[in-house]
This record gives sequence, C-alpha cells and structure tokens, in this order.
Amino acid sequence: VSTTSIGGLDGIVFDAYGTLFDVGALEHACAAVTDAPAALAQLWRAKQLEYSFVRTIIDRYADWGQLTSDALDYASTALGVALSPAARRALMAAWLTLPLYPDVPEALARLHASGLRLAVLSNGSREMLLPLVRRAALEPLLFALLTSDRVQTFKPDPTLYSLAADRFHARVFELLFVSSNGFDIAGSKSFGFTVCRVNRAGLPLDALGFEPDMTVASLAELADLLLDEQVQAAQDGKG
Amino acid sequence: VSTTSIGGLDGIVFDAYGTLFDVGALEHACAAVTDAPAALAQLWRAKQLEYSFVRTIIDRYADWGQLTSDALDYASTALGVALSPAARRALMAAWLTLPLYPDVPEALARLHASGLRLAVLSNGSREMLLPLVRRAALEPLLFALLTSDRVQTFKPDPTLYSLAADRFHARVFELLFVSSNGFDIAGSKSFGFTVCRVNRAGLPLDALGFEPDMTVASLAELADLLLDEQVQAAQDGKG
Repeated sequence: VSTTSIGGLDGIVFDAYGTLFDVGALEHACAAVTDAPAALAQLWRAKQLEYSFVRTIIDRYADWGQLTSDALDYASTALGVALSPAARRALMAAWLTLPLYPDVPEALARLHASGLRLAVLSNGSREMLLPLVRRAALEPLLFALLTSDRVQTFKPDPTLYSLAADRFHARVFELLFVSSNGFDIAGSKSFGFTVCRVNRAGLPLDALGFEPDMTVASLAELADLLLDEQVQAAQDGKG
Repeated sequence: VSTTSIGGLDGIVFDAYGTLFDVGALEHACAAVTDAPAALAQLWRAKQLEYSFVRTIIDRYADWGQLTSDALDYASTALGVALSPAARRALMAAWLTLPLYPDVPEALARLHASGLRLAVLSNGSREMLLPLVRRAALEPLLFALLTSDRVQTFKPDPTLYSLAADRFHARVFELLFVSSNGFDIAGSKSFGFTVCRVNRAGLPLDALGFEPDMTVASLAELADLLLDEQVQAAQDGKG
C-alpha cells in the first residue's frame, strides 16, 4: 500500500465493471455453453474493451449493450462455440446480475455514512447498469450514476470523465477516482482526478506513464484509510 | 473471397505488422526466456495494441519503441518471466528482424511491376520500420513509408490515415488499403479508403460495423485479382 494525503475530498467516483462488480462471474455463465469457459469469458471481455477503444478513436459510438453483443459474436465464432438464441440471451443477461466483490457493500456503506458523496462512472449504459445497481441495493448510497450513453463515448475519453466534475461541481483533484482497470487509472489520472487503484489480484500496473495516488487491495482498505484519516483530523482539531 | 470492382485505383497502402511482416515470429524470440513463449508473445502484442489505443484516446503519444518496451515490461512482469538486460535487448531486437509472410515478396514485385504506386502505413516508428523494410529489400518497391512518429498518433486515428491521402494526392476511395488487423480494417474503411482484408488465419471479422470491400487469403490472391482485372480491362479496350 502506498498513499498520499487526501484531505479535502469532495466525493468518490467508482468505476463499475471489475472494480465494484466482479466480471469474473461471466466465466460461470460461459460454462453453460463451452468446456473452456475461461477462454470465452476472457476473449469476450477483451473484445468488448477493444471495440470500445476503437469506436472511441474513430468516433463511431455504439450503445454498450450492442458493443457487448458484438464482442460475444466475435468471441464465440473465433472459439467455435455455437450459441442457441436462448444461450445467447442467458450470456447477455449475466451482465445484469454480476455480483459485487465481497469487500464492496460494507465499505460503500461506511463511506456513505461518513458523509462523502459517492458516484459510479462507467463505460456501461444506464440500461445495463441500473439493474446491477438496484440488485446490489446501491441506489440509496449513490449521489450519481454516470454512464457512457449520456455523452456517447467511452473511457478513457476525457469527455466521459468530465461528467463527474460537472455533476459534483468540484475541482477534478478534489474527486477521488477508484478503479481496477489500467486504462482507467491512466485515463482518470491524465484527466486530473486524485486516483486510487484497487489491485485485488496483485497484478502489475499497466505501463502507461501514470501512477495512481494510492493503491489498495480492497475497498475495505480504502475505507479504513479515508475514515481513519477523518478520525485523526477530528482528534487533531480537538487537540 | 468476396470482391467488388476496384478499377481506377491510384495506389495501394499496406499495413506492416501482421499484414506484411509476421509478428508470429516474436514467439520464437520469447522461447529463449520462457517455457510458455506463446503466452508472452500474445500478451506483449495485446498490451502493445492496448497502449497505442489508450495513449491515442488520452492524447499522450509515446514513441512506438517506448510503447513496445513498456508493453514488454508489463507482459513479462505479469507472467513472472525474469529478463536479463541482454534478453530484453534480444526481444526488442526481434521487432527489427520480423520476416515477411511467404506470399509477400512476389506479390509486391508483381504489383509494383504493373505500375501501381505502393506504400506502407504503420503504427510503427520510422526507426523501427526502416530496418525491417531494408532487410526485406522492399525499399525499391515503395513510393512512401508512412509512420506514426510523423503525426504522433496511432491508427485507427484518422490523422494517421490522412498521411496516405496527402502523400498520394489521391481521393481516399482511389487508394486501396490492405490490412489483416480488425481495428485497422474498421478504421481505414471509416476513413473512406477502399479496403482489402488479408485473412491468412481464417479468423472471423471483428464486429465493428464495417465490412472490407474485398477479402483475400494472401497477397498472391490480391495480386491475381488486381492484375487479372487489368488484363481484362486491356482486352476489353481492344475488343
């Protein structure tokens, strides 16, 4: 764990897929259609990301659901996995029931209770994220749900990050952006946010020329860091 | 094979890595440092592409050599492959000795002999591409070598494709752009080129909303198509 001072935070903005919600669960859904579910889930997710990058660069936005469906088409065809219409629907539906990582619910509840405003900012569409957020009972904790369909572009495009600065009416460095995804850490740091990397899997940092301001192994660790700091500041104030 | 009429071509522009030059050769170089060379070569190339996309979107250009070295850092660390300085240099040097696919030399010679102007347009830097082009004796065949360092951005950014239209003083649809890479096929077609996909491996087309104008299994097949068409046009002219 490395950290810097983060006093004066105006709010916390979380990435969704891979940061709050466990995309590893897609592998279980893929097990219904292939003996090599890890390969299908991995190629599906890789193509979903690649397509979001390419469409952003060539300025050809497509809705996140369409893009996810296109990525499944490619991945299943490339791996020779035949999909019945029902199997296809079940795989797409898995995106609407992704579980939270186990460390998320309590950490978000503690951070919310402390008075910090919390938001989600995701490459997903509102249509695909709202069911997830509701199912996980996160809606009462969230100040904002900021999604790609609003600006028709994907992270790491600064246009999408700017939604958070606008919605919070905050200076960018007063917002803490939290993500597990390397492209998102580079993109949010390049944009100007204070950035926390969540590294549950112990992977190296992507070599994109940007370092996060802090790195934690779970959101519980992040809540400890921020709330202990609050307690410390309150004690210092009394002293 | 599907094709459309391509009369009135002003020139042909080739992608380099994966289209003319076989990046599969990196696997051989990786075999010197790991028992799982395919995994290292694959992650290295995937991260190289991802980093080029991310840097393009956040407008943080880095030279292709730097980016390739960064991608190797990530891939080797993620896979737990220790690299001595000498091993690292040997892996980087492999990019300067990639072989042409076997179908390339004769096809390019035939196309050049027909009078068509040929160019290479690549995400690589001039520093990394010129040794490849010289080693493969392609220099006498090429009207232009167009590289990312000239505009400090990467494909599929239209800024890089526009180098070809400018250099040829041609209308974009009068240039045939030839690539094996899905993002490049979508990007070049979105830009307005006439596009030929080279699909040596029999992979599905990336689902990015763009279809190439023709698909071939090798450059020999492309040369046959174009030169047979020329012969046919000449015979029609006499008839």
